[in-house]
Amino acid sequence: MDWEEIFSRRPPPGTPPGTIRFNPAAPESSVSVVSYGPSEIEERRIAAEDEVRPFLGRRPVTWVNVEGLGSRQIITGLMEAFRIHGLAMEDVLDLSQRTKVEHYKEYVFFIADFVSAGGGIAIEQFSMFLGKDFVLTFLEKPGKWLEPVLERVRQGKGSLRSAGPDHLAYALLDALVDNYYPVLESCSEKLDEIEEELLGGCGKGTLGRMHRIKQDLRTLRRTAWPMREALNTLLRDSSPLISEDTRLYLRDCADHAVQIIDLVELYRELTADLVDLHYSNISNRTNDVMKVLTIIATIFIPLSFVAGVYGMNFNTEASCLNMPELNWAFGYPFALGIMASIALTLLAFFWRRGWIGKS
Amino acid sequence: MDWEEIFSRRPPPGTPPGTIRFNPAAPESSVSVVSYGPSEIEERRIAAEDEVRPFLGRRPVTWVNVEGLGSRQIITGLMEAFRIHGLAMEDVLDLSQRTKVEHYKEYVFFIADFVSAGGGIAIEQFSMFLGKDFVLTFLEKPGKWLEPVLERVRQGKGSLRSAGPDHLAYALLDALVDNYYPVLESCSEKLDEIEEELLGGCGKGTLGRMHRIKQDLRTLRRTAWPMREALNTLLRDSSPLISEDTRLYLRDCADHAVQIIDLVELYRELTADLVDLHYSNISNRTNDVMKVLTIIATIFIPLSFVAGVYGMNFNTEASCLNMPELNWAFGYPFALGIMASIALTLLAFFWRRGWIGKS
Amino acid sequence: MDWEEIFSRRPPPGTPPGTIRFNPAAPESSVSVVSYGPSEIEERRIAAEDEVRPFLGRRPVTWVNVEGLGSRQIITGLMEAFRIHGLAMEDVLDLSQRTKVEHYKEYVFFIADFVSAGGGIAIEQFSMFLGKDFVLTFLEKPGKWLEPVLERVRQGKGSLRSAGPDHLAYALLDALVDNYYPVLESCSEKLDEIEEELLGGCGKGTLGRMHRIKQDLRTLRRTAWPMREALNTLLRDSSPLISEDTRLYLRDCADHAVQIIDLVELYRELTADLVDLHYSNISNRTNDVMKVLTIIATIFIPLSFVAGVYGMNFNTEASCLNMPELNWAFGYPFALGIMASIALTLLAFFWRRGWIGKS
Amino acid sequence: MDWEEIFSRRPPPGTPPGTIRFNPAAPESSVSVVSYGPSEIEERRIAAEDEVRPFLGRRPVTWVNVEGLGSRQIITGLMEAFRIHGLAMEDVLDLSQRTKVEHYKEYVFFIADFVSAGGGIAIEQFSMFLGKDFVLTFLEKPGKWLEPVLERVRQGKGSLRSAGPDHLAYALLDALVDNYYPVLESCSEKLDEIEEELLGGCGKGTLGRMHRIKQDLRTLRRTAWPMREALNTLLRDSSPLISEDTRLYLRDCADHAVQIIDLVELYRELTADLVDLHYSNISNRTNDVMKVLTIIATIFIPLSFVAGVYGMNFNTEASCLNMPELNWAFGYPFALGIMASIALTLLAFFWRRGWIGKS
Amino acid sequence: MDWEEIFSRRPPPGTPPGTIRFNPAAPESSVSVVSYGPSEIEERRIAAEDEVRPFLGRRPVTWVNVEGLGSRQIITGLMEAFRIHGLAMEDVLDLSQRTKVEHYKEYVFFIADFVSAGGGIAIEQFSMFLGKDFVLTFLEKPGKWLEPVLERVRQGKGSLRSAGPDHLAYALLDALVDNYYPVLESCSEKLDEIEEELLGGCGKGTLGRMHRIKQDLRTLRRTAWPMREALNTLLRDSSPLISEDTRLYLRDCADHAVQIIDLVELYRELTADLVDLHYSNISNRTNDVMKVLTIIATIFIPLSFVAGVYGMNFNTEASCLNMPELNWAFGYPFALGIMASIALTLLAFFWRRGWIGKS
Repeated sequence: MDWEEIFSRRPPPGTPPGTIRFNPAAPESSVSVVSYGPSEIEERRIAAEDEVRPFLGRRPVTWVNVEGLGSRQIITGLMEAFRIHGLAMEDVLDLSQRTKVEHYKEYVFFIADFVSAGGGIAIEQFSMFLGKDFVLTFLEKPGKWLEPVLERVRQGKGSLRSAGPDHLAYALLDALVDNYYPVLESCSEKLDEIEEELLGGCGKGTLGRMHRIKQDLRTLRRTAWPMREALNTLLRDSSPLISEDTRLYLRDCADHAVQIIDLVELYRELTADLVDLHYSNISNRTNDVMKVLTIIATIFIPLSFVAGVYGMNFNTEASCLNMPELNWAFGYPFALGIMASIALTLLAFFWRRGWIGKS
Repeated sequence: MDWEEIFSRRPPPGTPPGTIRFNPAAPESSVSVVSYGPSEIEERRIAAEDEVRPFLGRRPVTWVNVEGLGSRQIITGLMEAFRIHGLAMEDVLDLSQRTKVEHYKEYVFFIADFVSAGGGIAIEQFSMFLGKDFVLTFLEKPGKWLEPVLERVRQGKGSLRSAGPDHLAYALLDALVDNYYPVLESCSEKLDEIEEELLGGCGKGTLGRMHRIKQDLRTLRRTAWPMREALNTLLRDSSPLISEDTRLYLRDCADHAVQIIDLVELYRELTADLVDLHYSNISNRTNDVMKVLTIIATIFIPLSFVAGVYGMNFNTEASCLNMPELNWAFGYPFALGIMASIALTLLAFFWRRGWIGKS
Repeated sequence: MDWEEIFSRRPPPGTPPGTIRFNPAAPESSVSVVSYGPSEIEERRIAAEDEVRPFLGRRPVTWVNVEGLGSRQIITGLMEAFRIHGLAMEDVLDLSQRTKVEHYKEYVFFIADFVSAGGGIAIEQFSMFLGKDFVLTFLEKPGKWLEPVLERVRQGKGSLRSAGPDHLAYALLDALVDNYYPVLESCSEKLDEIEEELLGGCGKGTLGRMHRIKQDLRTLRRTAWPMREALNTLLRDSSPLISEDTRLYLRDCADHAVQIIDLVELYRELTADLVDLHYSNISNRTNDVMKVLTIIATIFIPLSFVAGVYGMNFNTEASCLNMPELNWAFGYPFALGIMASIALTLLAFFWRRGWIGKS
Repeated sequence: MDWEEIFSRRPPPGTPPGTIRFNPAAPESSVSVVSYGPSEIEERRIAAEDEVRPFLGRRPVTWVNVEGLGSRQIITGLMEAFRIHGLAMEDVLDLSQRTKVEHYKEYVFFIADFVSAGGGIAIEQFSMFLGKDFVLTFLEKPGKWLEPVLERVRQGKGSLRSAGPDHLAYALLDALVDNYYPVLESCSEKLDEIEEELLGGCGKGTLGRMHRIKQDLRTLRRTAWPMREALNTLLRDSSPLISEDTRLYLRDCADHAVQIIDLVELYRELTADLVDLHYSNISNRTNDVMKVLTIIATIFIPLSFVAGVYGMNFNTEASCLNMPELNWAFGYPFALGIMASIALTLLAFFWRRGWIGKS
Repeated sequence: MDWEEIFSRRPPPGTPPGTIRFNPAAPESSVSVVSYGPSEIEERRIAAEDEVRPFLGRRPVTWVNVEGLGSRQIITGLMEAFRIHGLAMEDVLDLSQRTKVEHYKEYVFFIADFVSAGGGIAIEQFSMFLGKDFVLTFLEKPGKWLEPVLERVRQGKGSLRSAGPDHLAYALLDALVDNYYPVLESCSEKLDEIEEELLGGCGKGTLGRMHRIKQDLRTLRRTAWPMREALNTLLRDSSPLISEDTRLYLRDCADHAVQIIDLVELYRELTADLVDLHYSNISNRTNDVMKVLTIIATIFIPLSFVAGVYGMNFNTEASCLNMPELNWAFGYPFALGIMASIALTLLAFFWRRGWIGKS
C-alpha cells in the first residue's frame, strides 16, 4: 500500500528539524552535469562534489542531476556548493513530502511526485532547485522520463538552449505533468472494460478491480491537486528567477494540471456510477433467482398437495364418503385434470405479471 | 468514449512546447474571408495565405474562418500573417483543450467546445482570435452553426454590420452558447420519458439509458463550467479590444451560461432521483415475488403435511390407536375439513397483513 | 414539467440579440397607470402608449403596470417612452430568465420569478424598471398579488405614499418574497403527512409523492437562491436611485430571502430522510414476509418428511427390519409424537431468536 | 413541528413593513428595571412605561427586561422611550426571526434563539438592544436562564457590576450560548444509548428515534450557525458601543459557538453512521432468516423425495423391475441409509460454507 | 466516549467568565524549570511559585513546565508571575478547549490537543504561553512526549540551545504534530487488515471495527483541522515574538499538519469504500444462500411431485384409465426416467445461467 511507505519513510517523532537523514536502503547516487549556453554544451558524469565547482557560473545554465539518494558525501557536498538550506535538504531526502513550492532567498525549491503506471500506480519523488544560473534536480530512482528534455538540450533546437535555467525548469515540470496522461489513459481503459462487462450483465471480481481503481484515482488526486496549487503559486509569485516569457509557458503547464484534475474527478464519478451498476446487477440477479424459485415452487407445491390427497389411505369401504374418487372409473384422469388446470392458472398468472415469457 | 479521444489527440510526453503538430487524419482546411464595414461587404473563399493579406486593414472588420485543420501550409501562413504565438497555435491544433480565454498583447485568444446532440453528445473545438480589426476562427470540422451569424453580417441588418470585430466575436460566442439549449432539451425529453416509465412501475433497460444520460450530463458540465468562467474573465478584464457596449451583450451571454449550468445541475439531480426510483422499483418487485411465493407455499405446505399424515401405512389392525381415522365413516371429510380450516386461517392472516386483496 | 417550458419559450439559436419577440399565445396586455404624491393620487386604465406621456414627471411617482405581454404596439411604445434598452426588453419578453438585477444608466432592471402553489408549483415572470420618478412593471399574467400594495398606495397610510419610487419597488419585492411562505407551508404540510404515514409503517404511493415534492423544492431553490443574490446586489450597490432609508427595508427583505432558503434546504434534507424511512419500511416488510415463510416452511417440511417415511411401501413381511413400526401397537402415536417434538423444538428456536411472540 | 410555528407566526403577505403586530395569544408582559453602577443598584418591577423614564441616564447601566410580548401599551411606550426603529420592533414581535445582528445609529440590535431540551428541542426568541447606557431585552416567555446573570449583577462580585452595558450584553449572550451544552449532552446520551443497542444487534424502534434526533440536530444547526455568524459580525465591526475589553470576552463566546457547531456536525455524522449500522442489522437479520430456511429446506426436501419414491404404488408383481427394493430384506434400512447420507453430505456442505456451527 | 468528557469537563451555564475552576479530580501539579542560554543550562524541580521568580530574565530562555492541573496555589502563583489573563487561564483549566492561537499583549497563547493511540484514541490538552523570554507549558497529565525536546535542550546540540524561546515553542509544536503519525499508522494497519479480510470474502465483526475506526478518524479530523488553522494563523500574524527564522521552521510544521489532514481524509474515504465492500459481501452471501436454496428446491420439488402422483391410491381395477402405469412391467423405470430427465433439464438450465459449475 502506498501510505504504508509514508510511515516507514518518516523520521521518528522528536527528531530535530533540518536533520539530514540518509536512508541506508537508498540506491547509490549517480550525478551528471550538463552545462550549456546558446552555442556550446558540455556533459559529464561526476563522482565527487569537487568536480562540479569548475562548472558553476561558467556558462548561462548548469544543470546538475542526482539520481538515487544514497551517497552521503556527494549530496552534502552539493548542498554546500549550492548553499541549500537544511530544511529543504531534509525534505529532499524525506520521501514522504507533499508537492509544494518554497521560495528561498537564492533559489526556488520545487518538490513533486512523479507518477507512473504499471500494475498499480507508482510514485517517485522529484525535487528541483532553480537558481540564477543553475538547476539542481534530485530523483529518488534513475528516471528515464528526463531523457526527452535532455535530448532537446543536446540537439540545441527550439528555445530551450538559448533560454535561461527557468526555461529548463519549466521543461522538466512540463514533462512531469505530461506523464500523468498515460497513467490516466490506463485508468480509462480499465474503466471502459469494466463498464462493458457490467452493461453486459456479468462481471466476476469487478468489485475488487473497481476498489483498486478507486485507490489509484485517490492517489492521483492526492498528487494532482497540490501540483496545480504549486504551479499556480509559481505563476502568481513575482520571483525574479522566472522570466515573463517562461511564465507564459508555465501557464500552459498549469492548464494541463487543471485538465488532469478534471479527468481524475470525471473518472471518480464514473467509478461511483459503475459501482452503482454493479449493485444493480447483483440485485437483478437475486431477483432472477427468486423468480425461478417462486415459479417452480408455487406451481408444484399445489400439485403435490393434490397428489398427496389421493395418496391418503382412508378406507373406502368404511363409508361411501371416504374417497369415492379412488374407485371412480375416471378418477385418475380427473385428478390429472385438476393438476393441469392448477398449473395453467398459475402459469397464466405469472405470464400476466411478466415473470415468464417476457424477460 | 469521449475521453479516449483526449488521449489519442495528445502529443507524447516530452514534446517541446509550442510545437505545431498537424493531425494527418484532420480534414483539409477550407478558408473563407469576409471583410465588411457599415456600408460594404466582400466575401471570398481562398486557397493560399497570400490571398488574405490584401484584405487586412482595408475595412473595419476582416473575418477569416478556417474549417478543417489539415492543411499545414495555409495555417502556418495565417499564423505568420496574424502574428499568432506558437503556444496559442499549438492549442488550436491540439483538440483536447479546455475552454479558456487568454490575453496576448495584440489579440484575445478564446478556445471553447461546441456541443451538439445526435445519439450521444458530440464535442468540436472552436478557437477564435480577436484583434483590433480582425477575427480569426478555427473549426475542427465544417460547421453549420456559424451560418446564422454569417447571414446576419450579409444582410447588414441589426447592429452587427456597423459594430467592430468585438461584436462579431460576441455574436459567435452567443451562437456557441445558444447551441447548448437544444442539447439540454434532448436530455430533458429522455429524462421525462424515463420518469414516466419508472413512475408507471416498469422500465426495462432504464439503468443503461440513465447511465448514458449521466455521462452526457457530465460532458455538458465539464464544458459549461469553464465556458462560464471564460465569459466572466472576458467581462471582468478591461481589454481595450472589447467595447463597453459589447460588454453589455457579453453579460447577457454569461447569464445564459449560468442558466445552462443551472439546468445541467438540475438534470443531474433529477437523474439521481430517477436512479433511486429505479432501485425502489426493483425492491418492490422482489417484494412482490416473495409475497406470492410465501402465500402459496405457506398455505399448501401445511395442507400437504395433513395429506402426508393420512398417507402413512400404519397397520390399523395392529391396535386401535393406529390411525383409527382411516376407518371412520367421516374420515375423509374430516381430513378435508381440517385442510380447509388451515387454509382459511392462513388466508385471513395474510389478508389482515395486507398481503392479499389490498394490493 | 417546468423545464420544458423553458425550451419552448426560448428563441432559436442564432437569433440576433436584442430582438423583441412577441409570443403569439401571450394574453393581451392590460395597462394601468397610478400617479401619486404625498397628497394626491390618480389612477387610470389606458389603451395606448400616448396616454402615459402626460403622467410622466407630473407627480413624484408614476407606476405603470402591464399585465399580459401580448400587445406589441403598446409595449414597444412604453419601451420608447421610458427609453428601455433592447437587451432588457428582450429579457422581459423571454419568459425563461433567471432572477437578476442589472444596472443601466437611467434605471435599475429587476427580473424575478413569482411563485405560487396549487397542484404543483407555478412560476410567473415579473420584471420591473425603477427610474428616478417611475416604476414600470411587467407581469406575465394578470396578478392578484399586487393588489395589497396597490391598496396601500390608494389608502395613503404608512410611509409608502410619501416616499419615492424606490419604496414602491421595495414594497413590490417584499410582496414577491412573502409569497414564498404559503408555498413553503403547503410543502411542509405534505411532508408532515408523509412523515406520519411512514412512521406509522404504511405508505402506498409515498415514493411518487416524495418525488413530486423533491421537484417542487428544486424549483423553489432554483428561484430562491438567485433572488437572494439579486437582493444582496441591490443592497451592496450604491445606486443613487435607492435611498438610504429604503436600503434598510431591503435588508429586511433580504433577511426573508435567507430564511426562505434555510427552509427550502431544511425540507430537502427532511425529504431525503423520509425517502430513507420509506426504504427502511420496504426492507422491514420484506423481512416480515420472509419470516412468515421461513417459520411455516421450516416447521412443516420436516413433519412432512416424517409422514413421507411412514408412507413408504416397504414390505413388512419381507423381513423384520422393514418398517416394523407400522405394525407396532403404538406406531401412529409414536410417529405423531416425533412430529410434535420436532415442531416444538423449532418453535422454541424461533421464539428464542425473537421471530415469534415478540414482534 | 418546529417549522409549522414559523408559518403560523408570520404576518400575511402584503402586510406593510414596520407594522407592529401583537399576537393576541402572547402572555402579558412583565417588565423589570435594574439600574446599577459600581457601588449602587436599584431593582424595580414596573407596570407602565412612565416608570422607566426616571431611571434613564441616572446610573451607568439601565437594564430593562420584558418577559412576555402581549402588552401593547407598555411595549410601544418602551419603543418610544428608547427610540427603537419600527423594523427592529417588528422583528422583536415576529417570532420567526433568524439570529442576526443589526447596527442602528444609537444601538446594536441582537436577535437570537434560546434553545432548551425537554422531550424535543424548544426554541424561544430573545431580542436585545444595546445602547450607550442601557440594555433592553425581550423574552418570548418568562425565562429562568437569565437568573444567574441577574444574581451576578446583584452580588456585585466580578467585573460585571463595574463594567458598562456592553459587558452585561456579553454576559447575556454567554448564558445564551452556554445553554446549548445541556441540550447537546442530552442528544449525546440518546445517541450513545442507540449505539449500544445497535452494536448489540437489536434495536426496536431505533429508526424512529434516530429520525427524531436528526430533526433535533437540524434545529440546533439551523440556530447555531447564524449565532456564530452574528457573534463574528459583532467581533469584527468596530462599533463604539463595545469596548476592547468586552471584545476579548466576546471572542471567548464566539469560540464556544464554533465548538457547538463542531459538536452538532459530529453528532450528525454519528447519526448517519448509526443509520447505516441499523440497515446493516436489518440485512444481517434477513440473511439469518434466509439461512435457516435454506438449511432446513435443502436438507429435508431431498429426503422427502426419497420417501416419496418408496411411497409409489407400482405393482411389484407386474415385473421384477418394479421397485424390487420394497421386497428386499434390507429395503427399509437401505432407504434410511440413503437419506442419512444425503443429510450428512448437505450438512457438511453447509458447515464448510460457514453457515452452521461457526455463526 | 470522547464527547461525554467534554460535557463533564464544562462549567455549568451562567458561570462568570474568567473563573479559575480547579477540577478536584485533577492530578497534583509537578513543576519543573529549565533555564538556558547558548552556553549554560540549569534544571530544577520546584514546589512553590516563589522558586520560579529568581529564574525570570536571568538567561535568554526560561521554560516552566507544569504537568497535572490539580494544585491551585502554584498555578495561581505562576499566573500572577507571568501576568496571564484570566480568560486564558480559564481555558487552560477547562479541558474541553478547541485548538487555537490567541495573541495577547505580552505573550502568544497556544492551546492544542495531544493525540495518542492505544485501544482507541486518547486526547490530552496541551497549553503553551510564549513570551519574550519564557515558555510556560501546561500538560493535563505527565507527558513522556516532551522528553526528546528536553533532551535536545540538555545536549545543547543543534540550533535549539542558541535560539530564543520561539524556537523552543516551535520544537514543542513539532513534537505535538509528529505524534499524529504513529496514530495514523495504527489506523492504517487496522484498515489494511480489514481490507484483506473483506477482499477475501469473510469478515466477522468488521462493521463494528469499522465503526470504531470511523470514530477515531473523526476525532483526528476534529483536532487536526484546527491545528492546521492555528499554525497558519501563527505563520501569517506578524508577532514580534516569533523570529523570521523560526517562521521558516513553522512553515515546515504547518506542511506536516496539511499532510496529516490529507491522510485523515484519505482514510475516511477508504473506510467508506470498505463499508461498501462489506455491504457487497453481505449481498453476495445472501445471493449465494438463495442460489443453493433455489437449486435444491427447484430440482426436488418437481421430482417429489412425480413420486406423489405414483403414490396415489386410485383403484386400478375400477377402470383401465386408473393409473395403468402401476401395472406396467416398466412402470418404475419409466417413472425414474421421467424424474432423471426433469432433474437434468433443470441442471442444464442452471448451468447455462451460470448458477452452478461456474462460480
